[in-house]
Amino acid sequence: MSETQVASLDRIDLLASLTPDERSAIVRQCGWRRYKADEQIIDHLSETRDACLVVEGRVRVVMFSMSGREISFDDVSAGGYIGELSAVDGEPRSATVVALTDTLIAFVPPRLFQEIVTTHPKVALLFMRRLAAIIRRATGRIMDLSTLGANNRVHAELVRLAKPGLKADNTAEISPIPVHGDIASRVSTTRETVARVLSDLSRSGIVERRSHALVVKDYTRLVDMVEEVRGE
Amino acid sequence: MSETQVASLDRIDLLASLTPDERSAIVRQCGWRRYKADEQIIDHLSETRDACLVVEGRVRVVMFSMSGREISFDDVSAGGYIGELSAVDGEPRSATVVALTDTLIAFVPPRLFQEIVTTHPKVALLFMRRLAAIIRRATGRIMDLSTLGANNRVHAELVRLAKPGLKADNTAEISPIPVHGDIASRVSTTRETVARVLSDLSRSGIVERRSHALVVKDYTRLVDMVEEVRGE
Repeated sequence: MSETQVASLDRIDLLASLTPDERSAIVRQCGWRRYKADEQIIDHLSETRDACLVVEGRVRVVMFSMSGREISFDDVSAGGYIGELSAVDGEPRSATVVALTDTLIAFVPPRLFQEIVTTHPKVALLFMRRLAAIIRRATGRIMDLSTLGANNRVHAELVRLAKPGLKADNTAEISPIPVHGDIASRVSTTRETVARVLSDLSRSGIVERRSHALVVKDYTRLVDMVEEVRGE
Repeated sequence: MSETQVASLDRIDLLASLTPDERSAIVRQCGWRRYKADEQIIDHLSETRDACLVVEGRVRVVMFSMSGREISFDDVSAGGYIGELSAVDGEPRSATVVALTDTLIAFVPPRLFQEIVTTHPKVALLFMRRLAAIIRRATGRIMDLSTLGANNRVHAELVRLAKPGLKADNTAEISPIPVHGDIASRVSTTRETVARVLSDLSRSGIVERRSHALVVKDYTRLVDMVEEVRGE
């Protein structure tokens, strides 16, 4: 067990309320592995049930349709974790996880992970809130898929991306510029649809592509385009 | 506190591993209310954060689109619970809950519910597995909505309904006969689409409507119709 490994688990949000000794005990029972960008960390057909702590890097949780279309569920950065469902319920993997950048993963055996999340009330509550957040996001996505057309789903995704950077003058920068394929896979449509919607929005003066950012020039109008259809 | 109330919490699966004394302590802090069929138990705009134990009856978790279309998420019977997301994360209600039959609900204040699910490891694990199951089902539904057309989603729902009653001769009875509107709201389509798909399946000899049950006469063929598209 290296000091770096012990220190690195300090950065995992879920474990922040544990004592340094408790974290060291976990480090001793973890497996460690580095992945290059695009390498697969969890195969949805894999028989493993470990929870995977993302110590360094960034990963994407995805599924693929028969035609090979990627449907993405979540991006998780250093400090987060993945593979928690199989670790608590022992059922097969529900999705595939791929490294987006060079990534270091600490694998926590399922028994140990269950013990951690069920015997420390603060950790338990944090973990339950993370699962609740996943359910809320999935529920919103099911509603969007059930009630919005593909164009409006792209609008809704742009609103989500723009919101954190919203300024008082009703503009927002999305930086880095989002990749069409990423938006497509998050809202279950094709790259071509995303390209067409963005070029329509650009022609209407609602968004503008600059060198380092996609600028939403009229955030309120973009929100209205979604809410008119959603009925919020 | 009545003896009936104490006894009734014995039937809540989540609390089965607690001692009778621990359950009595919970009963004392619960609110109790009866609902008639079709009465609303949780409004998605409500400010309450209680977890709701379904002591008697059966309830449905739904959301409504702007056009009033019902998108249903779950039916929960006596022994189960609802409203657990707001109880653990303190966020607004994510959906509306309606009584399907006469129903008795025990309302557990959010603080107490958090204490119950975080301080008893067995209860914690059961609760986490319930949340994991909701996530897995939602993930499947997102995939179906992203990759299957409405017709195939109806086929997939019939497979889900038929599976528990599958017999060795490749037939399965679905009883009681499912209501078209219920199927429609579970797979995000219209009643008319469900009616059309069922009549197509009936003409092809794959299903047959009898007096008390919908009979799937060729289960394998129905499964194939879904899997060809899903690519499983």
